[in-house]
Parts: sequence; C-alpha cells; structure tokens
Amino acid sequence: MAIESFGASGAAKRLRLGMVGGGQGAFIGAVHRMAARLDDKFMLVAGALSADAERARASGAELGLDPERTYDSWTDMLEKEAARKDGIDVVSIVTPNHLHYDIAKAFLQKGIHVICDKPMTVTLEESLDLVRTADASGAVFVLTQNNTGYPLVRQARKMVADGTLGDLQVIRTSYVQDWLTTALDAEGQKQAAWRTDPAQAGAGGSIGDIGVHAFNLAAFISGLELEEVCADMRSYVPGRQLDDNANVLLRYKGGATGTLWTSQVAPGNYNRLSIGIYGTKGGLEWVGEDNDNLYYTPFGEPTRCITRGGPGAMDVANAATRMPPRHPEGYIEGFGNVYSNAAEVIWATKEARDPDPMATDVPTVRDGAKGLAFIEACVRSAKDGANWQKVAAVD
Amino acid sequence: MAIESFGASGAAKRLRLGMVGGGQGAFIGAVHRMAARLDDKFMLVAGALSADAERARASGAELGLDPERTYDSWTDMLEKEAARKDGIDVVSIVTPNHLHYDIAKAFLQKGIHVICDKPMTVTLEESLDLVRTADASGAVFVLTQNNTGYPLVRQARKMVADGTLGDLQVIRTSYVQDWLTTALDAEGQKQAAWRTDPAQAGAGGSIGDIGVHAFNLAAFISGLELEEVCADMRSYVPGRQLDDNANVLLRYKGGATGTLWTSQVAPGNYNRLSIGIYGTKGGLEWVGEDNDNLYYTPFGEPTRCITRGGPGAMDVANAATRMPPRHPEGYIEGFGNVYSNAAEVIWATKEARDPDPMATDVPTVRDGAKGLAFIEACVRSAKDGANWQKVAAVD
Amino acid sequence: MAIESFGASGAAKRLRLGMVGGGQGAFIGAVHRMAARLDDKFMLVAGALSADAERARASGAELGLDPERTYDSWTDMLEKEAARKDGIDVVSIVTPNHLHYDIAKAFLQKGIHVICDKPMTVTLEESLDLVRTADASGAVFVLTQNNTGYPLVRQARKMVADGTLGDLQVIRTSYVQDWLTTALDAEGQKQAAWRTDPAQAGAGGSIGDIGVHAFNLAAFISGLELEEVCADMRSYVPGRQLDDNANVLLRYKGGATGTLWTSQVAPGNYNRLSIGIYGTKGGLEWVGEDNDNLYYTPFGEPTRCITRGGPGAMDVANAATRMPPRHPEGYIEGFGNVYSNAAEVIWATKEARDPDPMATDVPTVRDGAKGLAFIEACVRSAKDGANWQKVAAVD
Amino acid sequence: MAIESFGASGAAKRLRLGMVGGGQGAFIGAVHRMAARLDDKFMLVAGALSADAERARASGAELGLDPERTYDSWTDMLEKEAARKDGIDVVSIVTPNHLHYDIAKAFLQKGIHVICDKPMTVTLEESLDLVRTADASGAVFVLTQNNTGYPLVRQARKMVADGTLGDLQVIRTSYVQDWLTTALDAEGQKQAAWRTDPAQAGAGGSIGDIGVHAFNLAAFISGLELEEVCADMRSYVPGRQLDDNANVLLRYKGGATGTLWTSQVAPGNYNRLSIGIYGTKGGLEWVGEDNDNLYYTPFGEPTRCITRGGPGAMDVANAATRMPPRHPEGYIEGFGNVYSNAAEVIWATKEARDPDPMATDVPTVRDGAKGLAFIEACVRSAKDGANWQKVAAVD
Repeated sequence: MAIESFGASGAAKRLRLGMVGGGQGAFIGAVHRMAARLDDKFMLVAGALSADAERARASGAELGLDPERTYDSWTDMLEKEAARKDGIDVVSIVTPNHLHYDIAKAFLQKGIHVICDKPMTVTLEESLDLVRTADASGAVFVLTQNNTGYPLVRQARKMVADGTLGDLQVIRTSYVQDWLTTALDAEGQKQAAWRTDPAQAGAGGSIGDIGVHAFNLAAFISGLELEEVCADMRSYVPGRQLDDNANVLLRYKGGATGTLWTSQVAPGNYNRLSIGIYGTKGGLEWVGEDNDNLYYTPFGEPTRCITRGGPGAMDVANAATRMPPRHPEGYIEGFGNVYSNAAEVIWATKEARDPDPMATDVPTVRDGAKGLAFIEACVRSAKDGANWQKVAAVD
Repeated sequence: MAIESFGASGAAKRLRLGMVGGGQGAFIGAVHRMAARLDDKFMLVAGALSADAERARASGAELGLDPERTYDSWTDMLEKEAARKDGIDVVSIVTPNHLHYDIAKAFLQKGIHVICDKPMTVTLEESLDLVRTADASGAVFVLTQNNTGYPLVRQARKMVADGTLGDLQVIRTSYVQDWLTTALDAEGQKQAAWRTDPAQAGAGGSIGDIGVHAFNLAAFISGLELEEVCADMRSYVPGRQLDDNANVLLRYKGGATGTLWTSQVAPGNYNRLSIGIYGTKGGLEWVGEDNDNLYYTPFGEPTRCITRGGPGAMDVANAATRMPPRHPEGYIEGFGNVYSNAAEVIWATKEARDPDPMATDVPTVRDGAKGLAFIEACVRSAKDGANWQKVAAVD
Repeated sequence: MAIESFGASGAAKRLRLGMVGGGQGAFIGAVHRMAARLDDKFMLVAGALSADAERARASGAELGLDPERTYDSWTDMLEKEAARKDGIDVVSIVTPNHLHYDIAKAFLQKGIHVICDKPMTVTLEESLDLVRTADASGAVFVLTQNNTGYPLVRQARKMVADGTLGDLQVIRTSYVQDWLTTALDAEGQKQAAWRTDPAQAGAGGSIGDIGVHAFNLAAFISGLELEEVCADMRSYVPGRQLDDNANVLLRYKGGATGTLWTSQVAPGNYNRLSIGIYGTKGGLEWVGEDNDNLYYTPFGEPTRCITRGGPGAMDVANAATRMPPRHPEGYIEGFGNVYSNAAEVIWATKEARDPDPMATDVPTVRDGAKGLAFIEACVRSAKDGANWQKVAAVD
Repeated sequence: MAIESFGASGAAKRLRLGMVGGGQGAFIGAVHRMAARLDDKFMLVAGALSADAERARASGAELGLDPERTYDSWTDMLEKEAARKDGIDVVSIVTPNHLHYDIAKAFLQKGIHVICDKPMTVTLEESLDLVRTADASGAVFVLTQNNTGYPLVRQARKMVADGTLGDLQVIRTSYVQDWLTTALDAEGQKQAAWRTDPAQAGAGGSIGDIGVHAFNLAAFISGLELEEVCADMRSYVPGRQLDDNANVLLRYKGGATGTLWTSQVAPGNYNRLSIGIYGTKGGLEWVGEDNDNLYYTPFGEPTRCITRGGPGAMDVANAATRMPPRHPEGYIEGFGNVYSNAAEVIWATKEARDPDPMATDVPTVRDGAKGLAFIEACVRSAKDGANWQKVAAVD
C-alpha cells in the first residue's frame, strides 16, 4: 500500500484552494471538496460558490470559509485572490458546463492553476482555445475525468502500454443510467433540467454528460486516437431537446474498432460504466461498479481477477491505493487520486522539477479538448442520419 | 416444475428420427442427439451421418443404428426411408451450412418433417425459397435456434408481450468468443476451417456463425422487426476471408434502436451471449452463461433476480423447466426444449389439433429466413463502408 | 471436449435398466431417467414404479414400457427379471430412503448391479450390512451422490490429490434451501411430508436430506476422513420432528478443521451448495449454482476462474464435459456423468478388465456408508447438547 | 442523497482532534485521519503519534501539526491539551490493542471524548472497567467498529428491527483473510508480529483481530444477545502463539443459532466479511467486498438487490450516503460515517440536546465490552476442547 505517498507528505504543504460553483443544492462541488480533503493536500480557503450572492454567502458560512474570502462572483474572487499574498494557488471550477470556459480562461491568464470538471467546455472551439490559453499561461490545468483515477484503470493503461494485450483490435465501452427514463427535466428537477438544456449543457445530452466518460476511459486505457464515429442518437422522452441514448460505432487510428453505448433511459442501470479491451494476446474487462477488480485473460489461459492492493496489482495501481485488498475503495477515492496527482503536478511546477512519475497520468487540457472533439463528431454524425464522421484532431 | 409435461407423455409415442451429418468428428450432431434423447420423445433410427461412406458406417455402428438404416448418402436415406412403412417421421440436418438448403428442401417435399441447424441456408434467396417449400409441403420445419429454448428467455419474451416493460426503446445484444484469436483456420483445425470458408459457411463469418444468435435472441424476446443495420465488420486475423468481429447498429420498426456486437477474437470470452432490453416501464437483462437467472427492474424499484423454477417464474418458463431452482440447467436442456416442442408441434400436426400453447414459440422457417436477411444486410452494409442498409422483409 | 467418450461408444452396447420407484408424482425418478438417457448407455426396459399397483401400471404405460415388464412390486420384478435371458443388467432404486436397504440388498444378492439414490439407508447398521452384501455379491453398487459428477468438482479433487493446495487446513461447506421455511409438511405436501418423517427419512432431516451432500462433497474433494463432529441442530418450524437447520463443526484426520451448515429455512436460498478448501499453498472455491466455474488461488497470486471446457481445465474434467466452455452444463449433466461412469464400471466388471481411469471416481457403497456415519454422528451429537462425537469408521 | 447532512453542516464548527498512535509505519491511524477529514467535522490539531519520540515528531511534521502540539507521549499530550483553552475536544486512540485501556481511561477521566479503535481492550475486565469509567465521566466514547458505518448494514439493522424478516432463526457470519498463511510474523513483518503476540493483541489472534468484526456485525444487524459459543480454534502456522483460524457455533438469546468462521490462512480471501440473516419471513445477505448492495428475499418472492442510494434504500441508509447509486463507496466512507456520527453525538452532548436520530447507531463502550466478552468466551471454549461456554453479559 501507498498510504504514505498520499496522506503523509501532503499536509505539511497544503495548497490553497478556491472554488467556483458548488454551493448549496449543487452536487459535484461537494464531491470535489471530499476528493480534495481525502489526502490532505489542499485547504479550501476561498469560494464564489453560487451565482446567487445570498446563496454564495450562506454556502461559505456553512463550509466554515472566512466571510472575507466568500465572494459574490468569480470575477471578484479572481481579482481579490490574485492580489493577496496568501491568495489561492488553484481554483476548482464546478459550475454548469457552459461557464467552464470563461472562468478557466480567466484564472489561467492570471497564472492560477485550474482544476475543472468535465466536459471541459460546451464547444470544441472553446476547448481548442483553452488548450492555447493553458499552453501560454504556464499554469497547470487538470480536468477531473475522475475514472482515470481508479487504481485498476491505471493498471489497465499500463498493461496495454507494456504490450501485455498485444495489438489492440476491439474495444467495447458504455456508460448507462436510467434516471431520465421519465420526463424529470420537464418536471423541473434541477439536475435534470440543466443537463438536458442545450444552452447550459452544450450540444450533447447523454453523450456529453456520460458518454464522454466512456470515450475517455477507452482513450485513457488504450492510448489510441479515435478517428471516426457513426452515432445513432435519440431523445426518447417526448419534448426532450438533447439525446438520452446514443449507439456509436468507433474506428481508431491503427485499425481497432469498437462500440460505445450511452443511455439515460435504461431501467436498472444507475451508473454503469464498463469497458472491454481485446488484443492479439489477451483481454481486459473492467466495470466501474466493481472498480476494485480487473479481469485479465492472457489468451489461452484462465481469466485472472486482479484485485486492488492484492497479488498482481502493479506499482502504478498501488501508488493510487489507500486500503488493503477487498476493503472497498470507490468513486471518492478515485476522484481523490486525481486531486492528489494534481497537487503533485502543481508542486512540481512550483519547484521546477519533474513530478513523481506515478502522477503524470492526470488528465490535461488536451484530454478535455479530445472529449469535446468526440462529442462534436457524434452530434454531427447523428444530425446527418448517423453516418461516419471524422473526429477532429487535437494537437 | 413441469417434468411431467416433458418426460412422461413422450416416451409412449416416440417419433422416429433420422439424422443427416453428425458423424465422428462432428460437434453439433451429438448435441442434437442429446437434446432429442433428453425428454424421450424421439428414437434415432436412421442416419446418413457423413459424406464419407466409411465414416458414415462406422458412426452408425457406434451409435447402435441398424446397419440397414445406416446410409452412405442423404439421398439414399431419403428414398429408402420414404418408402418404408416404419420410415422416419422427422430428419435432423446437422451438416455444414451450405448443405442445409438442398437437404431440407428434398425432405420437406417428401412430407418428412425437418429439424434444421442454423443458419438455415447460406443465402437469403435459398431461405426465401425454403419458406415457400415448407408452406407448400405441410410438413413441420423447426430451426434449432436453441437459445429460444431457455426457460427465462421465454419468460422475457412473455413479459415484453405482456407490456411489462412498456414501449421498448433500447436493445443491446452480443455474442462473443475468442477461439479464432489466432489463425486456427489456417492451421487446418476442422471446425475453424469450414466456419471461415465462404463456400461452406456463406458470406458471414462471426456474423453468420454467432451474431445471428444475438440477432435472433433480440427478435425473439422483443417481438420487433429489424428495419435497418449499419455494420462495421473486420477480419482481424491476416488471411481470414470472413469477418471475425462485427460492430452493428440496429434500428427496429417502431423506433427502438440498439447495438449488436459479435466477435471471435475477444480473449476471455468463450461463448458470451448477452442481452439487455429496456422500455418505458422497465428493463430486463440476461446472459447465456448464467441462463438460470433473469434480472428484471421495474423502473424505480430494486432489481429482482428471477431464477428458473423459483418465485416469479411464469408458466411459460415453468413449462420448459425440469429441475428445482438453482439445480442448474443449461445448453442441452434449452436445446432439448426446442426438440420437445418440435415433437409436440409434429404430433399436433399429425393429430390435426392445435399444439399445446406452451410449445408454439418454436423457431420456424420464417425465423430462419429472417436470420439470413439479417446476415445479408450486415454483409451488404459492411461492403459499402458500413452504411445503413435495409433488412429484407420476410412475409 | 470429450463428447465421443460419453455419447458415442455407449449406444451400441446399452445396458438394460430397471427402476424401482419413480412413478407419477415422484421427483428424483425422472432425474435418474434423464441422466441415464443423456449419454445413451442405458435402455429403460422394466419398472416397479410405484407401491400403488395402478399407479405403477399407468406410469409404465406413460414411459412406453412393455406392459409385461411393468411390475406391481419390486419383488415381482426381481424374480421375473432375474429369470429372463434378456433380464435387466442393473436396477435404479429411487424410492423413499427407508426402502433402499431391502431392495438394494435383494438385487445385489441376485447379482444385479445397483444404482441407488442417497442417503443410502436410514441407519448406519443397514449401510454397513450393505457394504458386506455388496462385497460378497460381486455386483457393482453405485450411489448417486450426483455432485461428484460435476466436471470441476472432479478437477478440484484431482488438484487436491496432486498437492496443488499443499496440506489442507480449513474446509467450509454448506447446502442451504428455504422451501421448508413454512410448515409445508404439516400441510400435506408430499415431498415435504416424507422428508420430515423419521419413519421414511431416517433420523436426520436437513442433515440427511442435503447436509450429507455437503459432507460428501468435502470428503470427495479433500480425500480426508472425518473424525469428529459437533452438531447443533434445530427444528425451527413448530411441530416438525426432524431438524431443519444444522450448524456443524468438523475435525478431520490429520488436523484439518471446518464448518458445515445446512438449512431448509434460509429464505432466498433454493439449492445453494458451496465449498471452500484451503491449504498451505492455495485455495479452491466452488458453488453448485455456478457449477461451470472453479475459483483457484495459488497463495500470493491472483485468483483464476477455471471454466469447464476452457483453459486450465484438466483431463479429469474434460472427460466429463459435453459442451464447449460457457455453454452451460448443469445438474442433469453431472448426474449423467455418474450414470455414464456407472455403465463403464459395469461393463468393465462384465469384461473382467479395469475401468477407464476417468470413471473410477464413481461413488461406492462405502461412500454411502460414510454418509450414514456422518448423519448418525451428527444426530448423536445434537441429542447430547451438541458435544463432540466420533464419526464411525467405515472400512 | 444526504451529502448536505454530512459535509455541509460540519465544517463551520469542526471539532479539535488529537491522536495517540498512528505515526509513520502505522496503518490504521491514516485510515482514521481520512475518515475524520472526509466530512470535514474534525481538525487534527495535536498528536502523540508514536512511543518513539523522534518518530512522533517526524510524523507530526509530516502531517503539518504545530510542533508545540506534537507530543512525545500521550500523558504529556493529555496534560497539556487539558490545560489549553483551545485544547482538543476529542482524542482518537489508534495504538496497538494493549494500550487502549490506559489511554482511554485517562482521557475519559479528564472529560475528553474518546474515539477508540477495536478491540477495545485486551481483557474483558478492562472493558468492563472502561464501561464504568465512561458512564462516570459524562464524556462520549465511540468505538470504531467501522462496519456499522456501511449504509446498507444500517438498513439491514433497520429492516430487522422493523420485523421485515419476522423472527430471526439462523445467522451465518464470517471474516476471512489469507495474509498469515505463511509465517510472516516469524519473519518480523510489523503488522503480523504485533497481531500474533498475546502481549500486544490479547488472548485472541484471528478471533480478536477480525472475528470480532463478524460477531459485531451480526450483533448490530440482528439486535440479538449472544448467549453461548462453541469455538474450535487452531494456530496452523507452526510456532504461532495465537489462533489463525476459528470455527465457532453461536447460540443467541431467544433461540436463533449460527456459525461464525474467521481465518487468516484461507488463500484467495483478502478481507472477506460476510453475513446472512434468516427469519420466518425473509432473508438478508451482505458481503463487505460488495458493500453497496444488499440482497433481500421476502420468503416466496424473488431476491431484490437493493443498491446504496437507489430504489428501496431507506432513510437510515440514505443519511449515510454521499454518492449516487453505483458510484461505489467503500471502507473509508463507512469509517467516515462513524466519525461523522461521533461528531454529531459529541455536539449534541455539548449542546445538551438529543443527537440526530440517524446518528444514534454509533458503537459505544458497551459494544466494545461485548466484543471482549465474545473473544473471551471463544478463547475459554477453545481451551476447553471446544465446548459450549456462556458469553458474559454486559449491562
């Protein structure tokens, strides 16, 4: 186990963290805060927690923030914190999707490191501009594609990179929910409403909300570039503007092919993220619900169940492991790994050294742009009757 | 349990069965024989078990067949048996795919009932001709799409027909193997060789060998007609002529959409047949490896595990059940259900009565033609760069 | 796969089989008949199917038996069949437990081979007498402890015998049901009534009906002799005379210890038979509901899932395998393996040769006596407040 | 979801926490710190982190503690902190077992609340004395029997209390590992060494280290008092002084019976904690490795899978839930629930009000004493050849 590398060394040099969004009634903000606290490498010291000033203040008070550093707007926070000697090192952006771009750009331009929720922006154009902005800024930009934080997802990536599976041929990936089976959005449920509103969520519904996780998981593990998609998308619930189901064919550079399925109308599935990756020498299967186990089959041999922290777990997984095998870890721990690695990358940047190699897999601004390129290609394909469309390259 | 309805009533009036193919070294013939024996409704009395006369005779001897009824060719068997007073009632055709058509047609035309392995023929044209032949003959034609024999597959079909899932929206189906990951066919392994040879297997490789099972399973449970497919197919193993992986998008009449994945190059999968069917009111999931359990989620309620023979199992499943719950049944039992139902349909035809309603789900010549229409549309789509293609209707 | 070794060689020299018990309304008789038919090594030619003469005849007619060989009593059948030139080779005894002894003894004494359901007798004394009778008769006696027929149970036994697990230390075994949670027996349900009646079932309730399967499974796989038990037994349903739950501690010769749990009042369990065997070098786990998979952990390495017919399956398992991996086999197939092995042992006896070594694991009269010794020791322990009691040795 | 009730309200009034033990090289201390941070209701402000003064200081520095509040000994910390105006509210005791008693007693007597790891003490006498001490002190004492923090364990307890299962009859519980299969302790591995040393661990080896978790889980869910045990214990590894495997029969007040199995020599098991509870109306099964799912069978109906945060999850579970269903939570989250509830109980005590009813299930000093009573009875039974022994009552 690698508790030491996470918990121990961090506390003494905690990063000062600000947060935009994530006030009362929000969901993902609290997740970011737990993830940030888990390994004690961050201190939340400032927040612009809501666009509603009153809610922003109440939220700050509840979190124990200094009222002086509880801001009514992110622009105010940016200005004041940038001016303080003990100003924030890093900002977490956890607003609805359509606000990510402006906020991230502004903080980067002031040299403040950014941790941003996904999808990174609502258009590919914005994403590409953010790539340039981040490159120019010298600040660190981390996208919380949190599934890359699961220890055995990292091991899967390493095994593929090591050639353990041989040449990759086939990929099957999916992310499936059921909570939008009924017209929850039309009934005004807040989470449903903004996620199905093109103005706030972007052009993708399920494909942008969760399908992009499946895309990203496949990209992360396989290391392959997606070249073309054929996406058949539907809004099954009458009146819904964005897709709630997408069936997608995938073609990767080098010849691998695959399928991606995402749905928010598949009863019995709550958050089922799943992947199978198959090559000439072996196969790997992993399911998010069962994140602590990775099923590996060397072709012609029995399937092995590699469990987090147990026999067969590799260094890259152990470095992201806090508990002994079969004491389950989960979503917050994986999210926490992204935060801990972000801290390490930021410290390394400050100290002008290379980060610990175990922390270099943290998702970057380019990964975010690739996610938007995927969403954009799917939407383009679906609009054209589900024909093959190229996925824009991100350099 | 319904042991009585299977085992008991059959033996006293066993049908006389002949077999074409299935001699020494074959695989599926032995499965048909076990399936036929299981409920004691058939007696194997004649065979043309191999195209090789010597092997045909040795095979007959080993099976304890009367040497007089061990034939060197199926044409000989047809002629002689049709002429006998105690001639065969029904013939099982278990040859490689490309021979099914001629043999089935000839036996039907003599009024001998036919039980035929899948895929029914190697071309859609042949299949459509066989539909006309069967209609004209008055003989019964049963296709051993054996997965329709699993008790809980039958229950799934009934639940859908009863409206338990509401309107169907999304279907995910797959059949995945790994045995062709290497170039077994090029090395002369018999099963691999004929299944990857267009002359014997038809235009579809994995799509015709196993993908058609996934198609058929979805059709059987959903009751929906497939309208269009978009099929991206590959032969990953160098030199292989037929597809060994197919990623397919599905569009059904009425608006449901889905994905179908079939592969013979996915290490760690031996015979993984799987389906998920989702409607406005609920979802069903079933996996062939775990055939005795059906997972049912009424939307908004916990998932139920319905186990064969246990609480929640319906009449249509119980009628196809021999064992108490969690004494596992499997492939042979499901196959046996198709045989037992075939016997019932043949008896009913002989006796000019309606068959037991529990036996009317037996796959017909039209189901076989639909399978070919599916394969043909996929091959057409794949050849055209994986664009959308209509699936021919079978009336 | 080893289809040939089962299906092929049998039919040409089928054994003539008689059956005692198993008429209309019975359960296990039909299972024996399916098991006997599966590999085509037996022909059912005679029966004394019920103690009720009318039911015996109706049952025979339904099974297509020659009316002349449909007997009103087993004594009649024994006399007549022993006198026929084409008389039965072997008799299957599938009556309630208390009748096994007299019938088996009588047939053995006439030199007719016996296949007998479990538990072998209702007292240990009877069992020990049957051991002597069988030894003296020269006839083959096979006990249908059917779980020994599962291919991967046989592999587990082989792995232990090969020393793969090192020295065995700990065994956990259980067989659990729920069908007697309510007072089904008091309501006159036939299966419940005789199984909870000491006069018909013997001194053990759940321990004799199903607990003995768990004992036997552990004995078969481990190869260890049970020395002592401490059994805490209860009849939870008011008015029930025999135990419906038993918690048992086990001590084996050589120092291994274990637990055995059997229950018929554990809601949610239908037929859950399960075992874990742990030694100094590794562990094995197997569950009857999932009979096609064996979980093997070499200490310090990831757990392997060995699937029937797949990579890692050994000869002893493959010899008992009919289907490719993940085309599920189950209870009837395992039962069929016991029948097929019985045929082989009988043939070998007739031909005065050694049986195929793959068929020598068939449960014998001594295994039956050991089952009774186990039941008897548990009952003795439970009566004495659940103290440690020696298990009688069977030589 | 109930994120608000955990994360939000806490931070503004964080409790000041000190820690005894848990310095560099320790395991459970880091777990306590993560659990304490997760919901932001505690600030670690002081520590006596090691008996080795140098290590204590290095550990404090690494954790970012004020050097002034980094103590060389717990006695020093107690004295100084008790004297400070801003002294600690609560102390976490995470030393080896044999030190718990003295430390807990001393802090309680100064009116400082105590959170103590399990087992509470090394003798039953000490535990009973601690009960009296805690009662007299007015301070809160919380034992981190962390499995009681799993949301669905709490739901199971509620379902039993509500009578959902009817009268309880049968309990099966186990906690199984494999890490002591070899003589790790003799090789000087620190964790293995102290856990198998009677002077540090107490009279129980596996029974005290992990078996007590299985006992406690059964007690928590069932609400039943254990009356008698019969424990057959072994030290399989030569030279080991304490048990590494224990097979235990259980008798509860009111008539329920059960089995408890604990092992540290069962290869393939890392931390397998499991329970089945069966009553006259239904059964519940839960496994720690799969903590987010609870399997509930109303007798005669299909088994339901109740998933954390999903349909069928009750208030008591939802109050302890941070994530939507199937975004896995785990060990740290369950541990965090115990910490969060401890905070609530301490706040309520300070504020002289009743705690939130959702927080009243937190394990108390009496639960700790019952754990010792269980261990002590098992050890007594094992020494006496595994006979039945009464479990001391804790009033």
